[in-house]
Amino acid sequence: MTPQKGKLNLVPFVSVDNMMKLILSIGVEEIIEGIANQIESDFRRWESFDKTPRVASHSKEGVIELMPTSDGEVYGFKYVNGHPKNTKEGLQTVTAFGLLADVYTGYPVLLTEMTILTALRTAAMSAVAAKYLAPKDAKVMAMIGNGAQCEFQALAFKRICGIETVRLYDIDPIATEKALFNLQDSGLKVIRTDSHQECVSGADIITTCTADKQCATILTDNMVGSGQHINAIGGDCPGKTELHRDILLRSDIFVEYPPQTRIEGEIQQLDQDHPVKELWRVITGEEKGRTSDNQITLFDSVGFAIEDFSALRYLYGAIKNTAFYDELDMLADPDEPRDLYGMVRRAANPIKTAAE
Amino acid sequence: MTPQKGKLNLVPFVSVDNMMKLILSIGVEEIIEGIANQIESDFRRWESFDKTPRVASHSKEGVIELMPTSDGEVYGFKYVNGHPKNTKEGLQTVTAFGLLADVYTGYPVLLTEMTILTALRTAAMSAVAAKYLAPKDAKVMAMIGNGAQCEFQALAFKRICGIETVRLYDIDPIATEKALFNLQDSGLKVIRTDSHQECVSGADIITTCTADKQCATILTDNMVGSGQHINAIGGDCPGKTELHRDILLRSDIFVEYPPQTRIEGEIQQLDQDHPVKELWRVITGEEKGRTSDNQITLFDSVGFAIEDFSALRYLYGAIKNTAFYDELDMLADPDEPRDLYGMVRRAANPIKTAAE
Repeated sequence: MTPQKGKLNLVPFVSVDNMMKLILSIGVEEIIEGIANQIESDFRRWESFDKTPRVASHSKEGVIELMPTSDGEVYGFKYVNGHPKNTKEGLQTVTAFGLLADVYTGYPVLLTEMTILTALRTAAMSAVAAKYLAPKDAKVMAMIGNGAQCEFQALAFKRICGIETVRLYDIDPIATEKALFNLQDSGLKVIRTDSHQECVSGADIITTCTADKQCATILTDNMVGSGQHINAIGGDCPGKTELHRDILLRSDIFVEYPPQTRIEGEIQQLDQDHPVKELWRVITGEEKGRTSDNQITLFDSVGFAIEDFSALRYLYGAIKNTAFYDELDMLADPDEPRDLYGMVRRAANPIKTAAE
Repeated sequence: MTPQKGKLNLVPFVSVDNMMKLILSIGVEEIIEGIANQIESDFRRWESFDKTPRVASHSKEGVIELMPTSDGEVYGFKYVNGHPKNTKEGLQTVTAFGLLADVYTGYPVLLTEMTILTALRTAAMSAVAAKYLAPKDAKVMAMIGNGAQCEFQALAFKRICGIETVRLYDIDPIATEKALFNLQDSGLKVIRTDSHQECVSGADIITTCTADKQCATILTDNMVGSGQHINAIGGDCPGKTELHRDILLRSDIFVEYPPQTRIEGEIQQLDQDHPVKELWRVITGEEKGRTSDNQITLFDSVGFAIEDFSALRYLYGAIKNTAFYDELDMLADPDEPRDLYGMVRRAANPIKTAAE
């Protein structure tokens, strides 16, 4: 993990611009697959992670959260805000950045924008779950909610699960228009539909990623048929759900981290002891995923710190030997640790420090 | 708090180099005084702050901590590590960086190195406490421990408390040599001494800032006389103290935040219900500070998130209209919030985005 000695005071930083260039250079699908592989490998060693709850600072307008985790060798955290009222003011609802540090030295080793990276990891996570839970040979995905996450989900499911057709619906036709345009040369067959009902028709997988902070009913019970896999992304904080409770009662439910999902996920609608399975146990083979063709499986996704950690780990490897990062002079590093004051004083006279 | 609209995706960043230049441009004493004023003003409104405990991730080698706080309008946090074994490997024991964000939007508005800034705020905090607790017309300060914090303490006490003489002692004469050299043109009378005992002789204020992670006895009971003020900086985590317990029993003890100090400060040696006074209540006048000439006062300082917040607030103001920061492209900001994917795609074609 530790980068080259002697440059530890310089922290590699991936700006938004460099993140976009990196993605274009690697390819969106390829980078999602890389993150998915890292998530799978980290989920296999789930028990080696510190699973601290997120540290939230709530206000009238929104929330600012720190999401730390560590595997004992590498420490990571994400800063993320959630301010639903921001879009009305031309701002992002969610912005994020992340950091990795070397546990052995405590020195940060990566700082990065994380708004785009989070979109990639969320899609990667959904596809990893579907790999274990979706019906065999699933080819058609319905996507209700065509916002910022939509295209990333479509490409992740194409790459990782072999989806060939996506059916789009959003209450705002402009969102669907945007997704249609963005996916036109993706290799996917993309179909615009005019209602929730029409959208889910014939789908093997239903992805819901709508954004309103309210208990909504994007899917009602009659819309879900036997054998389908539901990938529920949008219900991710208290008071924000997308599925009718009856669907939950008919489904086998898989989650990231039960203590968090019971508060933030669709299952906040259920009793605290309603049985759920942890996805990491399915990945390790400890628990079964899909066991029959007519079972309804539900991945109740809320996003967990280990996924961000996996994305940061992937990025840390991906930027090596590229030009897609800057070096931030972020850590004071006097030659003599006790002479911090002297270091400041000597900054007035660059000749003296030139030999460093 | 909110900076200029339209540039919210760019976060002002103060590098180590710019921090040093800023300090040299303002002056070390002036900047410490500025931070001290901000601390005093923030301590007066203590109750308006979120006082979250720090979030620590412990390992064999050290600890990585996140220290968040918020006053409802501004949110701040500091990342700080503590790795005592680092110095043996030529690394810093402690590195830190900090961030401020606008609570209303959740957008970060400042990112900065915080190793140097923490040294300044620690000195400022000590001097603010002494302003309320030290004997009247104190002129002589003994400083046991002449490491990284030493010169900053000396200058803070000169500027804010009118100290004229500092008496230095460190078990390592090289550390004392360094401090003597660095303070030679400070306007202070600086005296090297050869023992703890000699150092404290005739001092109005005793500052202890030694660094070993162990229960040490830098000061024994017979070394402290009536009327002195003790500024105990070094005892700041479980198992790390500097004063003999008997001194504590004879002193009136003042602390930043009791729940934290009882775990991390000198008072970890005392019963959990041993009476202590909160410094903020002394500053507001709710509680008395020094009440007699022969009272021994002790500021059992461990460092609290609000002090970092004050330092960040000060810095945020101080860099305005200067060249001492860069703008980091840290927050993804698509023109259409739902079109994150389109933003990434368009990055391949800068002509299309040139009009932004």
